[in-house]
Amino acid sequence: MRTVDLITKKRDGGELEKDEINHLISGYTDGSIPDYQMSAMAMAIFFRGMTPTERADLTMAMVHSGETIDLSGVSGVKVDKHSTGGVGDTTTLVLAPLVASIGVPVAKMSGRGLGHTGGTIDKLEAVPGFHVEIDNAEFLELVNRNGVAVIGQSNNLTPADKKLYGLRDVTGTVNSIPLIASSIMSKKIASGADAIVLDVKTGDGAFMKTLSEAEDLAACMVDIGNRVGRQTVAVLSDMSQPLGNAIGNALEVKEAIDTLRGVGPKDLTELCLILGSHMAVLAGIAASKEEARQMLQQSIASGQAIEKFKTFLAAQGGDATVVDHPEHLPTAKYQIEVPSKESGYVASIAAENVGLAAMLLGAGRATKTSEIDLAVGIVLHKKIGDAVQSGESLATIHANKEAVEDVLAKMYESIQISAIRVTPPPLVVGEIN
Amino acid sequence: MRTVDLITKKRDGGELEKDEINHLISGYTDGSIPDYQMSAMAMAIFFRGMTPTERADLTMAMVHSGETIDLSGVSGVKVDKHSTGGVGDTTTLVLAPLVASIGVPVAKMSGRGLGHTGGTIDKLEAVPGFHVEIDNAEFLELVNRNGVAVIGQSNNLTPADKKLYGLRDVTGTVNSIPLIASSIMSKKIASGADAIVLDVKTGDGAFMKTLSEAEDLAACMVDIGNRVGRQTVAVLSDMSQPLGNAIGNALEVKEAIDTLRGVGPKDLTELCLILGSHMAVLAGIAASKEEARQMLQQSIASGQAIEKFKTFLAAQGGDATVVDHPEHLPTAKYQIEVPSKESGYVASIAAENVGLAAMLLGAGRATKTSEIDLAVGIVLHKKIGDAVQSGESLATIHANKEAVEDVLAKMYESIQISAIRVTPPPLVVGEIN
Repeated sequence: MRTVDLITKKRDGGELEKDEINHLISGYTDGSIPDYQMSAMAMAIFFRGMTPTERADLTMAMVHSGETIDLSGVSGVKVDKHSTGGVGDTTTLVLAPLVASIGVPVAKMSGRGLGHTGGTIDKLEAVPGFHVEIDNAEFLELVNRNGVAVIGQSNNLTPADKKLYGLRDVTGTVNSIPLIASSIMSKKIASGADAIVLDVKTGDGAFMKTLSEAEDLAACMVDIGNRVGRQTVAVLSDMSQPLGNAIGNALEVKEAIDTLRGVGPKDLTELCLILGSHMAVLAGIAASKEEARQMLQQSIASGQAIEKFKTFLAAQGGDATVVDHPEHLPTAKYQIEVPSKESGYVASIAAENVGLAAMLLGAGRATKTSEIDLAVGIVLHKKIGDAVQSGESLATIHANKEAVEDVLAKMYESIQISAIRVTPPPLVVGEIN
Repeated sequence: MRTVDLITKKRDGGELEKDEINHLISGYTDGSIPDYQMSAMAMAIFFRGMTPTERADLTMAMVHSGETIDLSGVSGVKVDKHSTGGVGDTTTLVLAPLVASIGVPVAKMSGRGLGHTGGTIDKLEAVPGFHVEIDNAEFLELVNRNGVAVIGQSNNLTPADKKLYGLRDVTGTVNSIPLIASSIMSKKIASGADAIVLDVKTGDGAFMKTLSEAEDLAACMVDIGNRVGRQTVAVLSDMSQPLGNAIGNALEVKEAIDTLRGVGPKDLTELCLILGSHMAVLAGIAASKEEARQMLQQSIASGQAIEKFKTFLAAQGGDATVVDHPEHLPTAKYQIEVPSKESGYVASIAAENVGLAAMLLGAGRATKTSEIDLAVGIVLHKKIGDAVQSGESLATIHANKEAVEDVLAKMYESIQISAIRVTPPPLVVGEIN
């Protein structure tokens, strides 16, 4: 099989066979297929797309390019949740203990953040002592004992995807829906998921800026999942403004605590209930989304959810007193308000820009090796549609430096005030299953 | 300037600026831009094409990636001829002495053959003693003294094109008209051409199988030439059957001698007169194509043309006695006829396949380092439209081995006989200038 013939076939709109895709991915993983052929192939895929069969074959070829996690030692249906990334997305912190508290086993492999989007592990590490450096045996043991554990991403998982992603990043081939979809799905499947709930973000702060792109990506991932025997559901959620109010690691842990107690931001709470309901149904814990929702609400109301969070934190070395004493979390030295310059209604909050403002404070990584400051970040007091008086604070900047002119400027640039009333955007704009 | 941004720009249909193209080509030449970015760019160009300005900028960027030949020491307008490659294409062997004999200076840089198409240098080396390993000073001196000389391709000419061509060959990006056109034109311009006559072949034996592709390529090259100040004319000629009758190195030299004497095959003679007329007009030797044609025909009739060939061969160490004694050329041991199995009219002669038959005899190179046999090849006795009787020879195989069943089979496979009369295809199907 000559790689150049496969490139030409795809270039001319042909469909690659399963053995051809396996040849490509195994050859690329072992280095016998060079980067320059793979980048030409990726560009041909960018223009020609992939058929549903090709996408599923590509996903499984990447799954089998490296280690796969065996979760058979955990009883029950392992449902994983994946978010396509956003600003201030605290859902995983809330969902992991929340669904575990009603019996959905959560064996979560998570990553660190890059750029303006945060990573779940970074956020959890804001809890003093918490760590994800546990071995597989301990990981499974914790899931079986507590129903929930989080581990760092294995370096041996989907090496083909890792290599291909690095190549796509420098060859203008990131924005290809079949390549994005197979990348995400291969990681979830290699991590041992039996079923998958996808939170596909759309809007300014998301990777998919338009609803139509987000729908295409969601449909593509759901189709892949179902073709390879992993029941998959996608929720399309709004990222035209940050989710919840907090952006920053410790600040988001605090927000997760509030949400698990039933006093969190409305949008974050609602999205967690929607995603959690899907997870509970896929896991076979509830017969319907409505039943699942009641179970989740009941768990929050009864305190089971927040208790599960404490257990989870403590089991991985974390100081669970942060739940009752959030002041035990890293706290920034300075709190600077962002007073509104006019009266009116919040018309827009450019999510990506707010994420960049938090990065300026040190909350996010500019490069993979950047150190981050767990204490700093931004807490919004107003969301789109809210009325605001001139001088009233739009947000609080939590900083470890006094001079935050650049952050303030970015915040004012991000938040637009309208003289007329504004309707807030719907939180969930669609579902695909 | 980030290369990935240039790839993305082209991918999304944008037009690359001159300095962006220069960045790409100089970076690719010096190795600072890796193959994997260039192959992604080439694939994006395959899909998006290039604007006329981009093509001209790319051509000149490749010209300036290496050495350029200074022909200012040769007086007159230096007109180069380029053929896009075909089977049995003896035009350069005829044209070089023919146009030189009427005063068009011919300072020709030529290459060797690969695959089913022959190379001018291989053909000339069939003349005992002839060599092209001369230095630039001697080359210019010969052109000034005799009006004609041929030199081997410099290794330092258009290194960007050489590197890019090698990459395109293994990444499915050969078939891109702007890339083909800029590759050809950059070599011609770097070789010192003031004006260029292109012979763009179309049909089975040509790189461009269809007339519409050939027209696009021709128009693209003419446009590039005119944009960069090199007057360029393209003739679209038929390669649905081999040109002339001979395929094979010494056999084509013999055919060139016949043609320069006025007794060569009609199609080869006619194409040489057409291309030669354009060269003479561009060189300012003749005021019109008609006048040029008369001068060329007169030179053949008077013996000037064949005398110029002798002078040219002798000046580069060749045994000029081959002109009067073609038996001094390498001669194959066996002559095997290909008798027609039926009576009728020749309907088609698959040019590429006949070229492959000649390769089986050893006339062409399978790989760049293959040794070739200068004596062997095929001489056709019938062309499309000719009547043939059952048992009459369609062609003679000149072989240095007795067993030629594979070659015979390929010849019968290549030549179709029709019961009804067949109209021969037109030799020249268009002109672009």
